[in-house]
Amino acid sequence: MRFRQVHLDFHTNAAIPGIGSRFDAKAFGKAFKDAHVDSVTVFSKCHHGVSYHPTNVGKMHPGLSFDLLRAQLDALHSVGINAPVYLTATWDELAAFEHPEWRTVSPDGSLPMFRAEHGNGVGWAFLDFSTPYLDYLVAQTEEVMVNYPDADGIFMDISFQLPSISSSAKTKMDALGLDWTNADDRAAFTERSVENYFSRIRDAVHKYNPKMPLFFNSGHMRRGLRKHYAEFYSHLELESLPTAGWGYDHFPLSARYVDPLAIPFLGMTGKFHTHWGEVGGYKKPEALVYECAAMLAHGACCSIGDHLHPTGRIDQSTMNIIAPAYKWVAEREAWAVDTVNRAEIALLSLEAASGPRLVGVPGHHEGADEGAVRVLLEGKFTFDVVDLESDYSKYRLLILPDAIKVGPELKARIEKYVAGGGKVLLTGRSGIDPTSGFVFDIGAKWEGTSPNRGGDYVLPIEGLRADFVNDPLFMYQPVERARMAGGQSLGQVYEPYFDRTPRHCS
Amino acid sequence: MRFRQVHLDFHTNAAIPGIGSRFDAKAFGKAFKDAHVDSVTVFSKCHHGVSYHPTNVGKMHPGLSFDLLRAQLDALHSVGINAPVYLTATWDELAAFEHPEWRTVSPDGSLPMFRAEHGNGVGWAFLDFSTPYLDYLVAQTEEVMVNYPDADGIFMDISFQLPSISSSAKTKMDALGLDWTNADDRAAFTERSVENYFSRIRDAVHKYNPKMPLFFNSGHMRRGLRKHYAEFYSHLELESLPTAGWGYDHFPLSARYVDPLAIPFLGMTGKFHTHWGEVGGYKKPEALVYECAAMLAHGACCSIGDHLHPTGRIDQSTMNIIAPAYKWVAEREAWAVDTVNRAEIALLSLEAASGPRLVGVPGHHEGADEGAVRVLLEGKFTFDVVDLESDYSKYRLLILPDAIKVGPELKARIEKYVAGGGKVLLTGRSGIDPTSGFVFDIGAKWEGTSPNRGGDYVLPIEGLRADFVNDPLFMYQPVERARMAGGQSLGQVYEPYFDRTPRHCS
Amino acid sequence: MRFRQVHLDFHTNAAIPGIGSRFDAKAFGKAFKDAHVDSVTVFSKCHHGVSYHPTNVGKMHPGLSFDLLRAQLDALHSVGINAPVYLTATWDELAAFEHPEWRTVSPDGSLPMFRAEHGNGVGWAFLDFSTPYLDYLVAQTEEVMVNYPDADGIFMDISFQLPSISSSAKTKMDALGLDWTNADDRAAFTERSVENYFSRIRDAVHKYNPKMPLFFNSGHMRRGLRKHYAEFYSHLELESLPTAGWGYDHFPLSARYVDPLAIPFLGMTGKFHTHWGEVGGYKKPEALVYECAAMLAHGACCSIGDHLHPTGRIDQSTMNIIAPAYKWVAEREAWAVDTVNRAEIALLSLEAASGPRLVGVPGHHEGADEGAVRVLLEGKFTFDVVDLESDYSKYRLLILPDAIKVGPELKARIEKYVAGGGKVLLTGRSGIDPTSGFVFDIGAKWEGTSPNRGGDYVLPIEGLRADFVNDPLFMYQPVERARMAGGQSLGQVYEPYFDRTPRHCS
Amino acid sequence: MRFRQVHLDFHTNAAIPGIGSRFDAKAFGKAFKDAHVDSVTVFSKCHHGVSYHPTNVGKMHPGLSFDLLRAQLDALHSVGINAPVYLTATWDELAAFEHPEWRTVSPDGSLPMFRAEHGNGVGWAFLDFSTPYLDYLVAQTEEVMVNYPDADGIFMDISFQLPSISSSAKTKMDALGLDWTNADDRAAFTERSVENYFSRIRDAVHKYNPKMPLFFNSGHMRRGLRKHYAEFYSHLELESLPTAGWGYDHFPLSARYVDPLAIPFLGMTGKFHTHWGEVGGYKKPEALVYECAAMLAHGACCSIGDHLHPTGRIDQSTMNIIAPAYKWVAEREAWAVDTVNRAEIALLSLEAASGPRLVGVPGHHEGADEGAVRVLLEGKFTFDVVDLESDYSKYRLLILPDAIKVGPELKARIEKYVAGGGKVLLTGRSGIDPTSGFVFDIGAKWEGTSPNRGGDYVLPIEGLRADFVNDPLFMYQPVERARMAGGQSLGQVYEPYFDRTPRHCS
Repeated sequence: MRFRQVHLDFHTNAAIPGIGSRFDAKAFGKAFKDAHVDSVTVFSKCHHGVSYHPTNVGKMHPGLSFDLLRAQLDALHSVGINAPVYLTATWDELAAFEHPEWRTVSPDGSLPMFRAEHGNGVGWAFLDFSTPYLDYLVAQTEEVMVNYPDADGIFMDISFQLPSISSSAKTKMDALGLDWTNADDRAAFTERSVENYFSRIRDAVHKYNPKMPLFFNSGHMRRGLRKHYAEFYSHLELESLPTAGWGYDHFPLSARYVDPLAIPFLGMTGKFHTHWGEVGGYKKPEALVYECAAMLAHGACCSIGDHLHPTGRIDQSTMNIIAPAYKWVAEREAWAVDTVNRAEIALLSLEAASGPRLVGVPGHHEGADEGAVRVLLEGKFTFDVVDLESDYSKYRLLILPDAIKVGPELKARIEKYVAGGGKVLLTGRSGIDPTSGFVFDIGAKWEGTSPNRGGDYVLPIEGLRADFVNDPLFMYQPVERARMAGGQSLGQVYEPYFDRTPRHCS
Repeated sequence: MRFRQVHLDFHTNAAIPGIGSRFDAKAFGKAFKDAHVDSVTVFSKCHHGVSYHPTNVGKMHPGLSFDLLRAQLDALHSVGINAPVYLTATWDELAAFEHPEWRTVSPDGSLPMFRAEHGNGVGWAFLDFSTPYLDYLVAQTEEVMVNYPDADGIFMDISFQLPSISSSAKTKMDALGLDWTNADDRAAFTERSVENYFSRIRDAVHKYNPKMPLFFNSGHMRRGLRKHYAEFYSHLELESLPTAGWGYDHFPLSARYVDPLAIPFLGMTGKFHTHWGEVGGYKKPEALVYECAAMLAHGACCSIGDHLHPTGRIDQSTMNIIAPAYKWVAEREAWAVDTVNRAEIALLSLEAASGPRLVGVPGHHEGADEGAVRVLLEGKFTFDVVDLESDYSKYRLLILPDAIKVGPELKARIEKYVAGGGKVLLTGRSGIDPTSGFVFDIGAKWEGTSPNRGGDYVLPIEGLRADFVNDPLFMYQPVERARMAGGQSLGQVYEPYFDRTPRHCS
Repeated sequence: MRFRQVHLDFHTNAAIPGIGSRFDAKAFGKAFKDAHVDSVTVFSKCHHGVSYHPTNVGKMHPGLSFDLLRAQLDALHSVGINAPVYLTATWDELAAFEHPEWRTVSPDGSLPMFRAEHGNGVGWAFLDFSTPYLDYLVAQTEEVMVNYPDADGIFMDISFQLPSISSSAKTKMDALGLDWTNADDRAAFTERSVENYFSRIRDAVHKYNPKMPLFFNSGHMRRGLRKHYAEFYSHLELESLPTAGWGYDHFPLSARYVDPLAIPFLGMTGKFHTHWGEVGGYKKPEALVYECAAMLAHGACCSIGDHLHPTGRIDQSTMNIIAPAYKWVAEREAWAVDTVNRAEIALLSLEAASGPRLVGVPGHHEGADEGAVRVLLEGKFTFDVVDLESDYSKYRLLILPDAIKVGPELKARIEKYVAGGGKVLLTGRSGIDPTSGFVFDIGAKWEGTSPNRGGDYVLPIEGLRADFVNDPLFMYQPVERARMAGGQSLGQVYEPYFDRTPRHCS
Repeated sequence: MRFRQVHLDFHTNAAIPGIGSRFDAKAFGKAFKDAHVDSVTVFSKCHHGVSYHPTNVGKMHPGLSFDLLRAQLDALHSVGINAPVYLTATWDELAAFEHPEWRTVSPDGSLPMFRAEHGNGVGWAFLDFSTPYLDYLVAQTEEVMVNYPDADGIFMDISFQLPSISSSAKTKMDALGLDWTNADDRAAFTERSVENYFSRIRDAVHKYNPKMPLFFNSGHMRRGLRKHYAEFYSHLELESLPTAGWGYDHFPLSARYVDPLAIPFLGMTGKFHTHWGEVGGYKKPEALVYECAAMLAHGACCSIGDHLHPTGRIDQSTMNIIAPAYKWVAEREAWAVDTVNRAEIALLSLEAASGPRLVGVPGHHEGADEGAVRVLLEGKFTFDVVDLESDYSKYRLLILPDAIKVGPELKARIEKYVAGGGKVLLTGRSGIDPTSGFVFDIGAKWEGTSPNRGGDYVLPIEGLRADFVNDPLFMYQPVERARMAGGQSLGQVYEPYFDRTPRHCS
């Protein structure tokens, strides 16, 4: 897997003329080479639904008059740069327009649109994989496999799926005995649809080349779905642009989960000042160096998101900020190959433990997981993020952050781990069954959640205090109360004064 | 003016018993002394409306059995610490309860409440200075002046005022020929009410001691109201807790405006992790050192907000984080006395230039002012923030940030300044009259606001570029377009592609 | 009790000059006399809160310069016409303005206003009887009793009360151990407040003249509150203007309940085309004849609402439409004196059986009661409307309309009634306990509410059918299903076809 | 045209089995014959989109096993009863389900549904005539013409159209140079679509039989569209069920407009207690007699809406209520044939004068037209309702009700009419140009709209007064003020007292 990749977006409105009119194959290859780039993902079909090459399935961009994809592949290959190929799945404006019957229909009968917070108000329609759109998409994928067998991978973007009551979905749900007026049945069907999409695309790719790298992007790799990653993906790409909504906590959390899965993976940031698509927005070079360094440290290869100008011209300013980062990587990557991170602590992901489903647009953030990771990073601990299937025995400590419900299966696994010498740290409500208290015998009895809805004050025993505070600390939320078996205490809970019934005010 | 002050909040629900029950005069004074504090603001009356001393005007806190204010004053004075006295104005729960007719009535007939975003849902009623409440408040102030003549100042909190159509307000507006159904008339009356409040309180204080320091707090000193500051205030206190909604930009912006006014002032931060009232929340000591250092640098004395425990007991953990900061200050304050900042640049405040009024709760943030200050600070320029009455001739450059409307008077002042050798920098729409273009002859002609609602791309001429970008930059907003007289250009504006009418999507 | 009354509203904005300037005592008396009127309710204090006579308690209307009330009383008495006196209770604009602390405060902290649907947007504030306003109102009532002892009654308008959390109400609820944040406690306190108001006013009137007629108006006499009517009222007035929201069903329903209570009562309609206050709106004379005839038929005396012109001038057109109606009454009233209606059927009022409370503005309409009354009237049956305390033994049939819940007490009363030969008709859900079926042994077993939410089709056995329908009738709602003990059936329920799960549409 | 028609709805969910299982041809024909019915509209395709006969275009109802339409035609014809055939246009659930791309898309991107106020929550999707649905519908129509040439007419229901931005509509609007983001352009295109639908269906019918009666139903015949009625319709059917939202004013207003157009027409009421579809709801027979009598009086033939039971069984109770009405009609219709109403008054319809468009669902009600018709009917005047193209010279009086804007063309027409001896009555704002006053020289000058927003009081001169009112009448709205040329007056306007600024209340 290449270490210094560029993801070269090319979402180009069909109304724009002169596509690729300033494309210069030599300059194109040289620019990336000079910037120390060794792989560039280039476009077959973008969100506008048009193709950047002749096609018998869809439509070539009306402003394009030659095979741009071929020209890019050749230009890159000629200087030793890899060139995986991008197609978009759920969002395809052209298909949505020409085949409204392929669109996702929300359970309330409306037609959902994705409107980015940072966008200009325009949105993307959602296509429904249970309709014949999937056949169309598979045909497009096969066409790429046939005509561009020398491509270095298939990147299938926007691989998530909203629940749909399109006529196709209704008909198929009826046939499966699922009730399309029921939300659980709709979710079950949505998962089937996504799995079918994974399977159909994988088969279409492998039919021509079983070794072709293949990745399905959804903007976030849900923790706990390792089965899908093993079955359908050749590698993982962690989209995580810190300035574009993902924040600086998302990548380390994602990477610490993916790294131990032993699937090759990369981290993907962007060159943009804020978000994808910003052709004229530039991040400071220092930031890219930091972000790439973090990827290497977490065992990931690197990818930087960029967006090509409609004319195909290279933006030299962008090359100027990518170059320092990839020079930095190039000088160090020899030491990053075939390395393995070793960690003493396993953090059980709340996202993973909550049973994530292949339904809807993945959310980037899970507070308990992010908070725990931040504490561990700031404390400079070595840790992995684990799921319900991980082998805990490799770790000295297992942390269940804040809100992990422990069912019989997990309980048994943890008890075995403890029997083998492992230590467990429960925080917040983790491991508490609201009807019966602690699931484990931790030497203390749960005495319920504090009734102080505004928060409690707690003074831990001395060994557990922050170094500069010896007075009760405000907790911001109600605490879980517990008492040690021998009457010992881990600290004292104080009643807050401010919860007194206000005397006068309404 | 003392450099190392603590603002010791004491808003204590009337339902809490045992007020001051663990107050120890000696320990109290010693704790502050040991923490290098030299002034502590203590409480006569809090937002709950109860007094912390015997009173013939209001009511002493029912959980208090001695003169706590006197005890605090004596304890502090005995170790050489100043003790100004706090009263609250617009928020007084007891008065609002016992005299509903004193409450502010919103123009829609409802009774407004202040509910803090960070709060527990309870709010404060607003009292109306046009009602007899003002007499009550004046009497409370006079009682403090009589019984505590040795106090070191009067701090009158919550000095703003919402527009009101209380029966008193209606009657007075009728008498003044103002129409209480008209928003402008209501605003004019509100300003009169606030000025009357300033005047009545100042006279009540000066009647007993014309030298008693006096400050009216509103959470933000609106820029442009220097007339009021000169007429009614002895000094200014810039409330600005960076973690509590004010942010890190508010204090430097406020200080750079106040410093040149030649009125003594302090910066007020808090010891809280987040916001006022958090008895058990602790900021890291390093943060307090930084914040106090910034105050010294901007010519301000320091004040740290704290909140006393209902029992009057000192919170030693708080002292532990205040002490390092004030030790740092103590070691440097000799060099801060009688110093004057000198600046080369004057930034004309948009808030000041927009004609702020004494109406409503002051907003903390003005984007154009904050953005300009951030640029100037990051660029390490010396600057002051000025208003329409400042003397610009002291500065080499005058900046009008983003949205300053230039009327005839300001135009004349600036032209005179330029005639005297001054330079002017206009950014954004500043100095542009939308009907006639540039108000000044800047050697260019305004060609209108760009029609590209989503933003423009601009490539400045070489001398004006960022050092690492030589391609058009995305502007995020429509730009103001101008052309140089001699045909020269400051740069090139490019049409964005993304504003093309989307062909398919809705 | 007089048969031919006029309720002469006089709500006159304090800004109107020349009040009573065209009042001519002789013409005033003569006009009513000529129109066959024998009682005119005249005004002490109107909703604007001003008095129409000199007063030491409130304020005389600023546009009035003489004792208009005295002049009206004398003018009417001189021609043998009675003159009861009107005061308003909960709505008093002047008091609300001068004493905002007397206003009702809604549980959400807002100040409620009554804004009539038909009004011009202006509303009336609600005053709170738990505040000192009640003392003020009692003093006004006593002043009338002292200065106008020859008045023929006291009409106390707007006698309802909204739940209030005014400071007075909070303080009193605290003292009573009631929780003002709890809706039930607020309702209990509201009832106490209204009862205290009834009691205080009754005592104030009886102190001077125990025989003075006294009525408290709330726009609707809630059925089931006979205890209050007996304890505080000398007679009842059924406000019920058919064109002003009450409709044509309200009066007969109200009258059939009140008539058997053996309290003298009148029906009150209006001369207005639509609603109260319409000085220039005229109902057709024929309508007034009909409405008065219905009153006589139901055992009621008559009252017609009118509104006096600010100048006190008689509106002759109004007299022209009242005269024919009251001539008609005069010619028949000899036969209406001391008459008693006899009925065979008792309709148990759902409003009465639901336990009405003295809280809020009474609603005019209760669907089950109105529907049953309409059926009985159209079928020309003789009936009374009864409550839980009525003697059912006088009736041959007792009807429980649609939704009467039968508790142990009512069950016992009805079983005794049946044992004495009475018959009972249950309709809808009446007499069904959803957990155990029919409360009575009616010879059938309840089989639950139909699951057909859209409605059922029912074909009754022949004897129970409408004369022109022999096919299943659509019921519009789910029916209660029952089966006769002996397998017989009262009819057949058919499944509707339209509840089939729609195959295609969403 | 037949006088005694039944419109026999048959909207039958595809999930219902046993369609027509109890159909008895002999009984079917006899039942209608016995009820004096001479025409029954029967179904080819209902809103569920299924056909009631074998079809090569759509789908036969899955619960039907024979050619029900043929059976009905033969049964009716065998007893001399006509049988026009019904198809539905914009609402077709099956087509909407199988071809989501044929659905109307609202300008906000949602999929509109028609949900009847009286319905059970289920709705009908709207199909877009600019899509291939129109071809499908035309093919269905032709199939009926081919297979059922003996049918006595084509009734094309739901012939309106919502503005649509379906992909088809966008593509066609682009081709026409219309902007689908512009509401006016969308409306223009919607009109084109409807006209194209009219034209295509008419041509499809006439291709096989140019004499086949043809009607397009939209629930209301918009006044002013006589051009379309002449071009595409063989006759008109005025759907107007008084108890189902149309009210009792809609039919006479519609009929008085249609009658003078000299196009044969019928009035259509229903047998339902409330609304269409109510198989088990029965109107009183007397009501049907009244409604049919009104139709005869207005020059219309009669039609009574009914709904057939899914099994095809005749509902004898319905026959029992239709029979008396149609017996009444049969006995009188000889005198109704070839009659012409003569009227002295022409009422210019506001709906017609406002330029109605073929866009959206027609509203049933236009207040000014309805109010004027009610006055004329109650006053027993003979009148027609006319549009901008009518010949006014036949009438002695032309009324412009309340809000007719008079442009140059209408002005010229009216002035010519007056020159020929016609009289004109303007009410309300009719004939007033707000910038210049009366458009005609009526001998008076417009003095503006009264500023009394709450309404005025007017006392007309004696000859213009209501017979029983000689005092100023309240107008409920601001009046238009005018003064006669010679200083004479038509009455006096009084200022209302209630618009005085309220002194106290808010």
